[in-house]
Amino acid sequence: MKLSQKIQEMELSPIRKFVPYADAARKQGKKVYGLNIGQPDIKTPTVFFDAVKNFNQEVLAYANSHGIPELLDALVGYYKRIGLDYTTDDLLITNGGSEALSMIMTAILDEGDEVIMAEPFYTNYKTFIKAAGGDIVAIPTTAEDGYQYAVREKIEGVITPKTKAIAIISPGNPTGKVLTEEEMALIVDIVVKNDLYLICDEVYREFTYDGRELRSFGSFKEAEQNVIIVDSVSKRFSACGARIGSIASKNRELMQNLMKICQARLCCPTLDQVGAAALYNLDPSYFNDIKKEYEYRRDVSVQALNEIEGIKYGVPEGAFYITCQLPVDDAEKFLMFLLQEFDVDGETTMFAPAAGFYGTPGVGKSDIRIAYVLKAEDMKKGINIIKEGIKAYNAKQGK
Amino acid sequence: MKLSQKIQEMELSPIRKFVPYADAARKQGKKVYGLNIGQPDIKTPTVFFDAVKNFNQEVLAYANSHGIPELLDALVGYYKRIGLDYTTDDLLITNGGSEALSMIMTAILDEGDEVIMAEPFYTNYKTFIKAAGGDIVAIPTTAEDGYQYAVREKIEGVITPKTKAIAIISPGNPTGKVLTEEEMALIVDIVVKNDLYLICDEVYREFTYDGRELRSFGSFKEAEQNVIIVDSVSKRFSACGARIGSIASKNRELMQNLMKICQARLCCPTLDQVGAAALYNLDPSYFNDIKKEYEYRRDVSVQALNEIEGIKYGVPEGAFYITCQLPVDDAEKFLMFLLQEFDVDGETTMFAPAAGFYGTPGVGKSDIRIAYVLKAEDMKKGINIIKEGIKAYNAKQGK
Repeated sequence: MKLSQKIQEMELSPIRKFVPYADAARKQGKKVYGLNIGQPDIKTPTVFFDAVKNFNQEVLAYANSHGIPELLDALVGYYKRIGLDYTTDDLLITNGGSEALSMIMTAILDEGDEVIMAEPFYTNYKTFIKAAGGDIVAIPTTAEDGYQYAVREKIEGVITPKTKAIAIISPGNPTGKVLTEEEMALIVDIVVKNDLYLICDEVYREFTYDGRELRSFGSFKEAEQNVIIVDSVSKRFSACGARIGSIASKNRELMQNLMKICQARLCCPTLDQVGAAALYNLDPSYFNDIKKEYEYRRDVSVQALNEIEGIKYGVPEGAFYITCQLPVDDAEKFLMFLLQEFDVDGETTMFAPAAGFYGTPGVGKSDIRIAYVLKAEDMKKGINIIKEGIKAYNAKQGK
Repeated sequence: MKLSQKIQEMELSPIRKFVPYADAARKQGKKVYGLNIGQPDIKTPTVFFDAVKNFNQEVLAYANSHGIPELLDALVGYYKRIGLDYTTDDLLITNGGSEALSMIMTAILDEGDEVIMAEPFYTNYKTFIKAAGGDIVAIPTTAEDGYQYAVREKIEGVITPKTKAIAIISPGNPTGKVLTEEEMALIVDIVVKNDLYLICDEVYREFTYDGRELRSFGSFKEAEQNVIIVDSVSKRFSACGARIGSIASKNRELMQNLMKICQARLCCPTLDQVGAAALYNLDPSYFNDIKKEYEYRRDVSVQALNEIEGIKYGVPEGAFYITCQLPVDDAEKFLMFLLQEFDVDGETTMFAPAAGFYGTPGVGKSDIRIAYVLKAEDMKKGINIIKEGIKAYNAKQGK
């Protein structure tokens, strides 16, 4: 029996594969700051739990494949409030943003097709694209150039006859890069001229800092056939465990074909959809405090990172991740050191080694992604452990 | 922009694509008996809802990719009670049996690879297999031959160098065929000799009738590297909307590779896993009444079907589906007639046209699948409408 070639080419997620080692450290009595994963400690709005608890049908039945009407209506309302005129026919509810991405890749990629993405990229895209038979073509960016990828020559330089789509995460994971309106207009121009799908992962839409306003790619009428918006309640409402995401597109042919996959997998969980509807019906003022809190956590994290000698990173403009190049030879080895051999007063830190966020071979070996999803005090402590850990790790290696 | 070849080759589900027409009929005030989908009207055990309501964490966090420990432990206990010694390392929790199948296909199939299945088969397998780049090679069976496929020549006759797996649903969907122990031993022998994966969809395990005892493929030690068990709470506990399924296998290499996909899609819904753990902890006596009830519904349904002149079908031995060949030219056209033009006292019936359950071109055009998931009185009425509808439909066509 032989496994498929494509699964052999996939990798375990660098965000999750070290979890067993963190669990082992916890079992030994260590406290571990989890900066590896975008799991906020912000409370899930109680309306979610209330809605779930008020569900009073005796049979927990299948939902329809498209999504439950209450959630679709709530999502239409949410989009309307941010100026987008999606109707329920333009929407599909998915098992998290993850299933949305996986379905989209299946719908547009055949063996050998290419998707253009800025590098570093959210590593799980590799798996979704590989599963559909495709490959990522990376546009390298660095902290020094401000993670800038919306440059005509950079993008057009990598378009080939195999290119099917450009995938954008803005606000960005893992760099926090937020596109400006001019950059967005440039990308829209390129996808329209080159007849490409534009996959827009906007799950961090509300989280932009320093007064930045963010337009959605869904508002560019000229690209409405190209644009596919991916959304999720996970980060937006701190409801990661609900696994409710969505796809929005005016491209009827695409949506009708996506429905084939939706019907085959039957539906998304009924109770979580009921809860998610309540979330999308929240007053938009809900985001004010949350956004302020994340901006504060960013500031505190940046301040703490500045204490680390030899570190390189770009200050995030949105979302809640920072990609940093550490003064260590190998971020994976350093993480194992933190989990297995190091602590500060019985505490240690976990982050995501970021080599897996790159497509270019050999790049990113010293890089890590941290998520500033914990309260400011914990972020300070967690980052301080990294700082002290680097000294101990490099000393141990005789550097 | 061009959609992928593979999605163009997929089809909308014949079980779900007529739902909008049923909804339209309902809007016109008709009552529609939904025999199209395996959605039982049996109450979901209250322990599910109780567990969900007792969840008292403030943050609805990601679960781990593998599944929550309570559910994994409960599943180990369930398997132990039916004589299978799976440990938590042998299990993965999935978004329904659907995601389990879709992951397995991705893990074992590359472009052009083949999976052998008895025909008629549960139609959604086509989509999962096609999405992974593979194809179904069908072993035709008919009501007349008792839907028998476990015959050495039939199976070995379709094995090619491209064959990667045999997929078995027993108790069967859509025929209700239940494999005997001898038939299972034969299939085990074939997969071991030919080095094939054996995908065993046993989600209807508890529903076998006329005193039949069912052994799990998981109990054949000689094939433990070949066997992959797919399970789900949907039918077993009438909890279709929970979307909790699982994969069980002793094949370590396979399970480690499946974890790559599990990690990329992050996790299954947290609350539904909490509820599902309570279901798998139910005393096995729970199934006694349920099984009796389904057996009764089968008997009533069979009796009602016998009233239809010219019908052909095999009496199901398990699960809750009956595949019937109707004396009509085209089951899809007949269904549209029932939904749009016909009623008995303001009531009509919906079923799944079964052409999509066949791989052999041109076969199954007059076939339907009905699910005996409604209470006996409703099954009688629903089937009587089919009977009266056939007369009216054929009369209208001048037959």
